[in-house]
Amino acid sequence: MSNQALVQEFQRILGKEQVFLEETDRATYAYDAAVLEPVLPALVLQPRSTDELGQVVRLCHENSLPLTVRGAGTNLSGGSIPGRGGAVVLTTALNQILEINEADLYAVVQPGVVTARLAAAVEARGLFYPPDPGSMAVSTLGGNVAENAGGLRGLKYGVTRDYVMSLTFWAASGETVKTGSRTVKCVSGYNLAALLVGSEGTLGVISEIILKLIPLPADRRAMMATFSKMSKASETVATIIAQRIVPATLELLDNFTIRAVEDYSHAGLPVDAGALLLIEVDGHPAVVAEDADKVESICRQLGATQIHVARDLAERDRVWSARRSALPALAKLKPTCVLEDATVPRSQIPAMIQALEAISRKYNLPIGTFGHAGDGNLHPTILTDRRNKEEWARVEAAVDAIFEEALKLGGTLSGEHGIGTAKSRFLEKEFGTGTILFSKKIKAAVDPHNILNPGKIIGC
Amino acid sequence: MSNQALVQEFQRILGKEQVFLEETDRATYAYDAAVLEPVLPALVLQPRSTDELGQVVRLCHENSLPLTVRGAGTNLSGGSIPGRGGAVVLTTALNQILEINEADLYAVVQPGVVTARLAAAVEARGLFYPPDPGSMAVSTLGGNVAENAGGLRGLKYGVTRDYVMSLTFWAASGETVKTGSRTVKCVSGYNLAALLVGSEGTLGVISEIILKLIPLPADRRAMMATFSKMSKASETVATIIAQRIVPATLELLDNFTIRAVEDYSHAGLPVDAGALLLIEVDGHPAVVAEDADKVESICRQLGATQIHVARDLAERDRVWSARRSALPALAKLKPTCVLEDATVPRSQIPAMIQALEAISRKYNLPIGTFGHAGDGNLHPTILTDRRNKEEWARVEAAVDAIFEEALKLGGTLSGEHGIGTAKSRFLEKEFGTGTILFSKKIKAAVDPHNILNPGKIIGC
Repeated sequence: MSNQALVQEFQRILGKEQVFLEETDRATYAYDAAVLEPVLPALVLQPRSTDELGQVVRLCHENSLPLTVRGAGTNLSGGSIPGRGGAVVLTTALNQILEINEADLYAVVQPGVVTARLAAAVEARGLFYPPDPGSMAVSTLGGNVAENAGGLRGLKYGVTRDYVMSLTFWAASGETVKTGSRTVKCVSGYNLAALLVGSEGTLGVISEIILKLIPLPADRRAMMATFSKMSKASETVATIIAQRIVPATLELLDNFTIRAVEDYSHAGLPVDAGALLLIEVDGHPAVVAEDADKVESICRQLGATQIHVARDLAERDRVWSARRSALPALAKLKPTCVLEDATVPRSQIPAMIQALEAISRKYNLPIGTFGHAGDGNLHPTILTDRRNKEEWARVEAAVDAIFEEALKLGGTLSGEHGIGTAKSRFLEKEFGTGTILFSKKIKAAVDPHNILNPGKIIGC
Repeated sequence: MSNQALVQEFQRILGKEQVFLEETDRATYAYDAAVLEPVLPALVLQPRSTDELGQVVRLCHENSLPLTVRGAGTNLSGGSIPGRGGAVVLTTALNQILEINEADLYAVVQPGVVTARLAAAVEARGLFYPPDPGSMAVSTLGGNVAENAGGLRGLKYGVTRDYVMSLTFWAASGETVKTGSRTVKCVSGYNLAALLVGSEGTLGVISEIILKLIPLPADRRAMMATFSKMSKASETVATIIAQRIVPATLELLDNFTIRAVEDYSHAGLPVDAGALLLIEVDGHPAVVAEDADKVESICRQLGATQIHVARDLAERDRVWSARRSALPALAKLKPTCVLEDATVPRSQIPAMIQALEAISRKYNLPIGTFGHAGDGNLHPTILTDRRNKEEWARVEAAVDAIFEEALKLGGTLSGEHGIGTAKSRFLEKEFGTGTILFSKKIKAAVDPHNILNPGKIIGC
C-alpha cells in the first residue's frame, strides 16, 4: 500500500481527527524521559476502542509499519521512542476503568487509565492498588504493565507484575490473545501475561488489563531518620532487612539530593545531613507500632542523629511529596539529567554506595543518589550537559562503570526502568548469549515483520 | 544416529548406571498421578550434574528424541507422561540446596530438591517458603516450578510463581538461558522465568532455581468450623473474603470427603457434618487474635454448629494432616479417582458448589468436594472404576460439565494442577484461537524439533 493509501486507511478506521500528521503534533511523541536522541514518528494514531486498536495493529503488520504504543511517555530507557518511519499509537483515549470488583478483589481497566486515577478509585472503596511509580500522577497502567513499573512500595508490596492477573492483547498478526484469569490461581496455558509484562510493547499490544487489588492497610506511620554519613544510612537499610522487618517503603537520599529537593520543595529537609532515610511501615495498628519502634531503635543504634515521626497524614504526605520531587529537583540543576537504576541484592547496598562514591570521584562527576534502598534499587543520577562532549564521554564511561559494579555485586542492569534502547547493548553481559538467542526466537516468532516497537530490549 | 549409538552416547555422558533400559525400570516412569494411559519411555536418564543435563538435552535435540523431565511424578494432568518413543530425564540426582541467603532472603536450589526439605531447611533459620502443594513431602521444586504448583497457603501467600526470582535452564538447542536475578526487582530482558513457570517442561529444561523467602510468621492459629450444609459453609467462605480478612488457609471439605478422611485417618472429624471449614490465620500475634475472632464470629453468624480452635501446635498439625489425607483417603475408596481443579472467582464458590451438586445428581456419580475454597480453587473428586465403560462415559461427561460451569462462572480450567494432556483439548474454549496460535508460535520457535515434553498444554 502506498504511504498515502495507508494514511487514508488509518483515517477510515479511526476518523481523520485521530490521525496526526503535522510535524508539530508528531514532535511531541518523538522522545520519552530517557536521555536519548528523539525520533520523529511518521504519524500518530489515537484509537478510541480496543477494536480500532486491533485494526491498527493488523494494518501495521500487513504493511510492515513499525508501531510504538505510548501511554504517558514517562518511561526512562527509550521504550516509547518510535522506530524510524514508524507510527506512534496513543492509548490515551482507551481510558476506561471497566470494573472494580469488590467481592473478588480485582479491577478491569483499559491501558490508557492513569495509575493515580485507579489508585484513588479503589482507595475510595477501602481497597489498595500498591504499585506507585514515581510518575503515577500521569503514567498509564498500560505503560506500567509494558515496563513492569516499580515504585516506592516495592519492598513490601512488589511491582506491577505482582498485580497482573490477566491481559488481553493484540498479537502482531491481529488476533486477540487472552491470558490469565479473574481467579486468584490460574495455570491454564502458558503464562503469556507474565511474559508480556515488562516486554516494552515488543510482543503484543495490550488492550485490557485485570489487576489484583488488596485490602487497604489499616494504619501507616512515616518517619525520617537523619544520618551524618551515607555509609551509616546504608548499613541501617541492610540491618532493617536482616532483622526481617518489611517496611512498606524504605527510601534513601544522599546529601546532594537532599539539597536539590530542599531548594525545589522547601519541605524543611536537613540540608547538612549526609543522608536521609524515609521510612513507612503499614498494616495492623499493633504491627505498625511495633515495627516503627524497632526501626527507630535500629536507626539510633546505627547512629541516626535525628528521627522525626510524621504526626499526621498531612505531615506524612509532605515527606513523600518531597521524596517524589527528587527527580524533578535534580533535573532542574543542569541541562541533562541521567537517571540510572542499576540494582543489587539488598545486603550489597553499602558496597554499591561506596562504589558510586568512587565512580563519582574517578570521573569527576557529581552523582546524586537516592532511591528504593530497601529493594537494593538505587537511582544514581548524573547531572551534566550533553552538549559538552568531553564531559558526556565521562558520563557514558561512568554509566558503564555503574552497570559493571552492579553486575559484579550480583545485581541487575535495571530494577524498574527497563532496558529499552538505553541498555540493550549491556543485556548480553548480564545474561549471556543463550538468553539473547532465546529471546530473539520468541520475538521473531510472534512478530515476524518486526513491527512491534522494534529495536527495544534485545536490539532487533 | 542409530538407537544403539544413541544409547551408547548417553552412557558415555552419564555413565552406564545412570541409563535405565530394562522394561521393569522404565515402567515406573510411564505414568503420573493423573488418570491417563501410561506411555512406556524408550529409556530413562539420570544426570548427576547440570552440565550432564545440558548434554542430554543437546543430544535429544540433535536426534529429535522426545524428552520428558520428571521430578517426583506427582502432577495431576499428565505432564510427566513421556512422549511416545521418548526419554524420561530424572532430576532426582540434582538435589542440592546450593545456598540459603539469610541477608537477601532467597534460596538457590537444583530442580530435584524435595519441596518439604527446602521448607524445613529455611524454617530452621526462621524463614518461610510458603508454597505447600499437597504432595510437598515428595514433590520436587523443579516439578513445582514446571507446574506452577499451588497449595493450601495460596490464598494469602500465592503460588510457586510468586516465589521464582530467577531460573537457569537449558534451551532445546542446548544453550544455557539465565533469566531473572537475585535482586527483588528486575526488569532486565524478557521475563522468561515467568514464562517457564507452569510451562510443564515444554519450553526449556530447568537446571537452577532461585526462590524468594520471607520471614516466618510470628504466630498461627488453626480452627475447624462445622456446618450442617455445604451452602452455609460456602457462603461463609465468600463472606470472610468479602470482609477483607486474608487467612493463610481456608479449606472446605464436604460430607463425602469428611467421611473418607475420618475412615482413613481417625482424626476425630464430625462425620455427620454437612461441611467443614479448616481455617488458619497467621502473622503478628495481635493480628492473629483479631482475625481469629472475626472469622469465628462470621462462622457463627452464618450458622456454624461448632467451632473448635486448635489448642496447640500438635492439634494444629492434626487438622492439617487430616486435610492433606483427603486425596489418599478418597483414592482408596474406588479403583479410579478423578481429581479436578476447575477454579472460579471466590465470590462464585457458592454457585460452583450448587453446580457440582447438580452435576453429581445428573450423572449419578458420587463427587467428593474439598479444596482451597478461599482461592475459588475446589477439587471435585469423582470416584469410579475406569474399567466400567458405561460409568466412565458418565465420568467424562461430568468432567466436561464441571469445566463448562467453571468457565461460565468466569473461572478457569485449572487453578493449580496444570493442563498437561488431560485438559489441552479444552484450552481453546477458555482462551480462543488467538491464544493457542500465539502459544504454538513460541513453542515452535524455541523447540523446533518438538522434543520438550511434546503434546502437553497446547497439544502439539
